[in-house]
Amino acid sequence: MSDEIPDIVIGRLPIYLRALTQLATSERQVTSSRELGEYLGISSAQIRKDLSHFGGFGKQGTGYHVETLYNKLREILYVDTQWAMVVIGAGDLGHALAHYRGFQSRGFEVVAVFDNSLERIGKKTNGYEIQPMDQLAKIVAEKNIKVAMLAVPAENAQKAAEQLVEAGIRAILNYAPTNLIVPEGVQVQYIDPVIELQHMTFYLGDT
Amino acid sequence: MSDEIPDIVIGRLPIYLRALTQLATSERQVTSSRELGEYLGISSAQIRKDLSHFGGFGKQGTGYHVETLYNKLREILYVDTQWAMVVIGAGDLGHALAHYRGFQSRGFEVVAVFDNSLERIGKKTNGYEIQPMDQLAKIVAEKNIKVAMLAVPAENAQKAAEQLVEAGIRAILNYAPTNLIVPEGVQVQYIDPVIELQHMTFYLGDT
Repeated sequence: MSDEIPDIVIGRLPIYLRALTQLATSERQVTSSRELGEYLGISSAQIRKDLSHFGGFGKQGTGYHVETLYNKLREILYVDTQWAMVVIGAGDLGHALAHYRGFQSRGFEVVAVFDNSLERIGKKTNGYEIQPMDQLAKIVAEKNIKVAMLAVPAENAQKAAEQLVEAGIRAILNYAPTNLIVPEGVQVQYIDPVIELQHMTFYLGDT
Repeated sequence: MSDEIPDIVIGRLPIYLRALTQLATSERQVTSSRELGEYLGISSAQIRKDLSHFGGFGKQGTGYHVETLYNKLREILYVDTQWAMVVIGAGDLGHALAHYRGFQSRGFEVVAVFDNSLERIGKKTNGYEIQPMDQLAKIVAEKNIKVAMLAVPAENAQKAAEQLVEAGIRAILNYAPTNLIVPEGVQVQYIDPVIELQHMTFYLGDT
């Protein structure tokens, strides 16, 4: 399935899922591509086209059943189950990620935090004892962990990524402001606030 | 200029700039669309096309002069100057953002941190005294601040965004996992780790 569907479409599915979660929370039963589109700033035609890759969900004229589409998107994205995650780096950001309460309801759970600093190893952050990196492979294998968040300085990121891949991690969310080189089949996504900020300042111009 | 150039192209310019910064740090003088493309996982044709929107930078066969392209991209994105920023929300994430040392060299600087919690107001985070939200408009006006990072719970995000816009903020980097409705002309970008994680689990499947 993933061979046929453009990655940019896949990237929008979690945004639809998040919007549906909010609709479901407010006990809405039905929505439409138009309503979703206005809320998300995406055209309704785009939403219909994106969802049509996975079969038809809406009936012409009646819109989408919120709970059905919500459940279906969770299945498509494989977040109807819980993914265990490791956090690499126990600085301010790693600490914030270990504390973040928004993961569990959306399919993810931090199960271990690693760092290389002797000052940090053995301390606790949000109940996790910070582990040394030489324990990574063992813990990842034991707990069958596939997902990691990388919150180390840029100059350490590539090496840490290689340790993650070696340990069996197959998806890395990289917070270090640098590109990673990983083998084919390993997923990487990037979070770098400056990239987003610079995207916006283009439009602000000389204000 | 921004009317003509697709937003997706603008969104890639900061990624090119970041790669060029790394090349410049390693004292490379010349690069090519091919080298950049291999490093970034973007086709060299795409890079040439993106940059051609802003005039020709590379000479056929000789590639790009790293420092020239670096300086030009900084100008295009208006980050050859320093943007003052406010952080809204002084929880774990706001704290990490206030402490983050990666902003200054790339065009941004946190100048004030705000929160509504009486427990937090008046305390210091990384030398910033946490200010109450009712001081926002005054400080934003005094310091002519245009950029904000929003690190509040999802249920408070829309209201905080409205306060930001009212105060004169024109670009919001929203870390709350919810869509914001803002007036035309106000830029919003989103950082939500779960969106990126769910994008990756699609490809991991039933592993």
